[in-house]
Amino acid sequence: MAIRVGVIGTGAIGQDHIRRFSETLSGARVTVVSDIDAARTKAVADKYGARVEANGLDLIKAKDVDAVVVTSWGPTHAEFVLAAIAAGKPVFCEKPLATNAADAKKVIDAEVKFGKKLVQVGFMRRYDAGYIMLKEAVTSGTIGTPLMIHAAHRNPRVGESYITEMAIHDTAIHEIDCLRWLLDDDYVSAQVLKPRSTKNTHAKLVDPQIVLLETASGMRIDLEVFVNCQYGYDIQCEIVGEKGIARLPEPMQLDLLLDSKRSTRILTEWKDRFIGAYDVELQDWINATAAGKQTGPTSWDGYSAAVTADACVAAQKISGTVPIKLGKRPALYA
Amino acid sequence: MAIRVGVIGTGAIGQDHIRRFSETLSGARVTVVSDIDAARTKAVADKYGARVEANGLDLIKAKDVDAVVVTSWGPTHAEFVLAAIAAGKPVFCEKPLATNAADAKKVIDAEVKFGKKLVQVGFMRRYDAGYIMLKEAVTSGTIGTPLMIHAAHRNPRVGESYITEMAIHDTAIHEIDCLRWLLDDDYVSAQVLKPRSTKNTHAKLVDPQIVLLETASGMRIDLEVFVNCQYGYDIQCEIVGEKGIARLPEPMQLDLLLDSKRSTRILTEWKDRFIGAYDVELQDWINATAAGKQTGPTSWDGYSAAVTADACVAAQKISGTVPIKLGKRPALYA
Amino acid sequence: MAIRVGVIGTGAIGQDHIRRFSETLSGARVTVVSDIDAARTKAVADKYGARVEANGLDLIKAKDVDAVVVTSWGPTHAEFVLAAIAAGKPVFCEKPLATNAADAKKVIDAEVKFGKKLVQVGFMRRYDAGYIMLKEAVTSGTIGTPLMIHAAHRNPRVGESYITEMAIHDTAIHEIDCLRWLLDDDYVSAQVLKPRSTKNTHAKLVDPQIVLLETASGMRIDLEVFVNCQYGYDIQCEIVGEKGIARLPEPMQLDLLLDSKRSTRILTEWKDRFIGAYDVELQDWINATAAGKQTGPTSWDGYSAAVTADACVAAQKISGTVPIKLGKRPALYA
Amino acid sequence: MAIRVGVIGTGAIGQDHIRRFSETLSGARVTVVSDIDAARTKAVADKYGARVEANGLDLIKAKDVDAVVVTSWGPTHAEFVLAAIAAGKPVFCEKPLATNAADAKKVIDAEVKFGKKLVQVGFMRRYDAGYIMLKEAVTSGTIGTPLMIHAAHRNPRVGESYITEMAIHDTAIHEIDCLRWLLDDDYVSAQVLKPRSTKNTHAKLVDPQIVLLETASGMRIDLEVFVNCQYGYDIQCEIVGEKGIARLPEPMQLDLLLDSKRSTRILTEWKDRFIGAYDVELQDWINATAAGKQTGPTSWDGYSAAVTADACVAAQKISGTVPIKLGKRPALYA
Repeated sequence: MAIRVGVIGTGAIGQDHIRRFSETLSGARVTVVSDIDAARTKAVADKYGARVEANGLDLIKAKDVDAVVVTSWGPTHAEFVLAAIAAGKPVFCEKPLATNAADAKKVIDAEVKFGKKLVQVGFMRRYDAGYIMLKEAVTSGTIGTPLMIHAAHRNPRVGESYITEMAIHDTAIHEIDCLRWLLDDDYVSAQVLKPRSTKNTHAKLVDPQIVLLETASGMRIDLEVFVNCQYGYDIQCEIVGEKGIARLPEPMQLDLLLDSKRSTRILTEWKDRFIGAYDVELQDWINATAAGKQTGPTSWDGYSAAVTADACVAAQKISGTVPIKLGKRPALYA
Repeated sequence: MAIRVGVIGTGAIGQDHIRRFSETLSGARVTVVSDIDAARTKAVADKYGARVEANGLDLIKAKDVDAVVVTSWGPTHAEFVLAAIAAGKPVFCEKPLATNAADAKKVIDAEVKFGKKLVQVGFMRRYDAGYIMLKEAVTSGTIGTPLMIHAAHRNPRVGESYITEMAIHDTAIHEIDCLRWLLDDDYVSAQVLKPRSTKNTHAKLVDPQIVLLETASGMRIDLEVFVNCQYGYDIQCEIVGEKGIARLPEPMQLDLLLDSKRSTRILTEWKDRFIGAYDVELQDWINATAAGKQTGPTSWDGYSAAVTADACVAAQKISGTVPIKLGKRPALYA
Repeated sequence: MAIRVGVIGTGAIGQDHIRRFSETLSGARVTVVSDIDAARTKAVADKYGARVEANGLDLIKAKDVDAVVVTSWGPTHAEFVLAAIAAGKPVFCEKPLATNAADAKKVIDAEVKFGKKLVQVGFMRRYDAGYIMLKEAVTSGTIGTPLMIHAAHRNPRVGESYITEMAIHDTAIHEIDCLRWLLDDDYVSAQVLKPRSTKNTHAKLVDPQIVLLETASGMRIDLEVFVNCQYGYDIQCEIVGEKGIARLPEPMQLDLLLDSKRSTRILTEWKDRFIGAYDVELQDWINATAAGKQTGPTSWDGYSAAVTADACVAAQKISGTVPIKLGKRPALYA
Repeated sequence: MAIRVGVIGTGAIGQDHIRRFSETLSGARVTVVSDIDAARTKAVADKYGARVEANGLDLIKAKDVDAVVVTSWGPTHAEFVLAAIAAGKPVFCEKPLATNAADAKKVIDAEVKFGKKLVQVGFMRRYDAGYIMLKEAVTSGTIGTPLMIHAAHRNPRVGESYITEMAIHDTAIHEIDCLRWLLDDDYVSAQVLKPRSTKNTHAKLVDPQIVLLETASGMRIDLEVFVNCQYGYDIQCEIVGEKGIARLPEPMQLDLLLDSKRSTRILTEWKDRFIGAYDVELQDWINATAAGKQTGPTSWDGYSAAVTADACVAAQKISGTVPIKLGKRPALYA
């Protein structure tokens, strides 16, 4: 009765998800795994009682796979998702859905042609308890119509391989999806400000950056992206409405009185910050899949994020604003 | 491969646990249920695909039951737990282990005779993320040796059936276990102060009360129990150590700026306050049971709580202190 | 037109008050100073343009002194205050009014005989902005009738000369006055609990202590006194009422995000904690004096504090409660 | 010995300052007052024992006036300040120093010619305890080199006479001065974003607005100005540095637990929010004046604010950035 899941990609996040299906969540088990790293895949399969399929495309077609999880290298995502749609199987795809808007568009076209939503994109923030409270504060009318969002996405530090564009594609991408979901609106333009850089950055990274987004209804977002902030992994989000303001809660931490300071700990790892959200996200996907439904972030959401990210990267290179054009939303995603 | 669980008691908390085993947790499924309310039990069994056993003692002996959960009416707990020990089956028993110290002692004697710990008592606060952080602050030495605890257990209101003694047996009982666990110490005396009663109480209930506990190493606890506090379900715990202080975190809530107030919500239901702790508690029990171990609160903990509660109730009736004597701790619980 | 103030005692707090009258406050100036330390007194007089009077009793009688401030050594307070009453001059006396209840009683008797309140005792907490907000929360009915107070008075550390009794006379004395004022009630009994002592105390000091006070209307106070708490000078006060709870605000401090911690500074010096209260207290005394009124803490308040402190010290030596008896309050202090 | 102050302008803020000099602060007294409203001026003079001078320019020249306070209608400020400089008398001028940059420049030229700083502009935020803590966090290096400031200036509501430009001249003007002082840097460009307007605004007011400022060293400021935010008078300021972040503290308020909410009050009046700052500001001016010095915000600061405000108003009318050019700073203001 449990859903038989095939997982493509047995790296860090793949293994983490396999562990979830096997030890934490209810209603699914991992039957097949696949990855280009054969030795690692064999070890993971043995640990969790799954079998190995050498090729991801074969895994998708396998009879003992009811649903697919794609946690492989980003550039391979679109191909596997398209194959899952072709096989008519539900697929959970870690972000990004595709590395460019054109490939994301192909997924939409295939899904629209298939006539049913099969894809859930791994935007896990929508499943974080704090963001869910924020969403409720908006939809319930508690703070009135939203007018602005002030947000920040801060990492303690990044390596030399992290370059300016990644501030958008790897970091701001979370807010790009999540804030759009919070506001239930589409973006129409992007601008990027470049403050004086921190001395803790390196030659190929402008850090921090401020991303300014405008929505169709005129709401304004300022998002600070600061990936060498030193002090912690810190996610801030404040929605300013016509009647009041709601702020994303801090993760629950002890209040300590020590050494002339009243303090609470700030986390330093994103995995710890959103650990609960991943559990909720995948349990929700299992439940929806078992019910023959799609309830999470869609491939349209993945496409929207890709288009917006492309505009932000373009905006990094000029001093003014870059328009964001999504095209017509297919009825499937209404 | 999943542990086959038999649940005795299909009331509110019983159903809640059955739902957990069936829809949320990993590694167990409910195979048999039993309760004196036959109709309700039939409905629950049908909903979750379990079968009904008319008699709890028969459920315990059933071949399709690997482990037992006791969520029946309090006065029946000890009998079912004793039967589970007799059957050599792991048993999770909701608090109280027994309604008096003598019956709790019988469980200990039976378990000691059996020679292996089989019983876990449902003190779920030990599994609350906040209390776990407090425990870590103590054991890591962050705040130095603990000297005092200031605690409060507040409910918005209680009905007429809730009488003075229940402030101990139903309410303070949680802190009685949890603070002893936090301090890793035993109680030696209890005193109860009775402040001016709130006008919101009724004839048979002194409310609020202040319970003063002393431990073997001299630590002092003051615990306010206030069950008609009106404003919310509020659990406070502050450990004062030689170097600093650690406070139980508040449940995560939105920060709202509205109507000339900066506010966060206070919960009003205990079920909401500790909802996460129940999941962790039962997953932990499943995992330990699967590994043939007992890792949670023991029957000795249940017995200690019962002895302490009896002393507190005695202290409600006098103006001074009442000694607390546990007797020698069997090696099984060392 | 400015009130001409004579100050007896030119030690630390005396100089601090002289500075206030001279540089910060409006409506008074220091004309005469006196102290047994002649050299220091001369220097202070020169700095602030005052003259020296060798003897405090002569200062009180001097024609260029309209009102007297007593900041000399505690055991001399009662004598100077009695002399000021005899001279019919308003007198501000730093705490304590007298070092024992009998001497405090003499002041009351003299003042009652004189027929007009002339004495203000230096209980400055009543002038702290935070305590004033607490008082307002009580008197406005915001939290309903008060039932309990949980309080703490913590110092980072004390020297060898600070002994067990001083936890009452020097430390708890502030709460003894201030909480009585907050509740507008009299104490009827005291009990002192002695938790396990911190290793940071010394041979002649039991530290921490918990002082339990009961008021005439049945309200209960638990006050932790912990003078080697290491982490800071920390004053806590929480009033539990029938409808809700009000907590003393923390002093305003920056919110810092640094080194994986969100923190605010905790002060370590009582002078910094209540710096604003002293200014308000003395300006209020100047204004009242100029208007021929007495508006602050009276000698009856000083007497009540002395009687209560004596009971607490007695309670340090036994395991139960000690009654507190004030006698009849003269109409002058109604 | 007290400084004899002449006050031009006896409206609300004028009277408030006269009360300060007379009843709260030390070292000054108001000897002469002047205003176009003769009846009101007579009443104020009588109340505080001052005399009336019909003409402000005569007041400035009066022998019984050592220093001048200008609290008249904004458009008259520059003329009175120029007259005070001509008379060689210290002058405290409420903001604005002048209603346009050209007039402010005349003041600078006159002061430079006179050869000594005589003017203090009434930017009182620099004297707020919270901003002083922020400044200390910057200058001490606690948070490292500042890179960005996120700020907000919110009022509950404004009347129909408050138009779009006033969001700069009357509201943002405080941050324009204060943030420049915090960063010790000059502005080089301004941009204004216009989010969707709140339904609570009126025809002639775009509300909210986001002002983006850039400094000479590349620091970036985003300042939300929202003058119909409904919920309170709320001032936010967060400085993001290379090592960490410092946030302006909230005004001290009770923590209340009531009605399922943990809350603190948000003020609604700017006068209450900065009440303490005015006292410190004017005492500082008295002390500096008595010492023959100028220590507060200078006329150069007033000029800089005027130039920046003009640029922001220009930026309200276009979609890109407007450069800010101050010209060379005279040595007098180095």
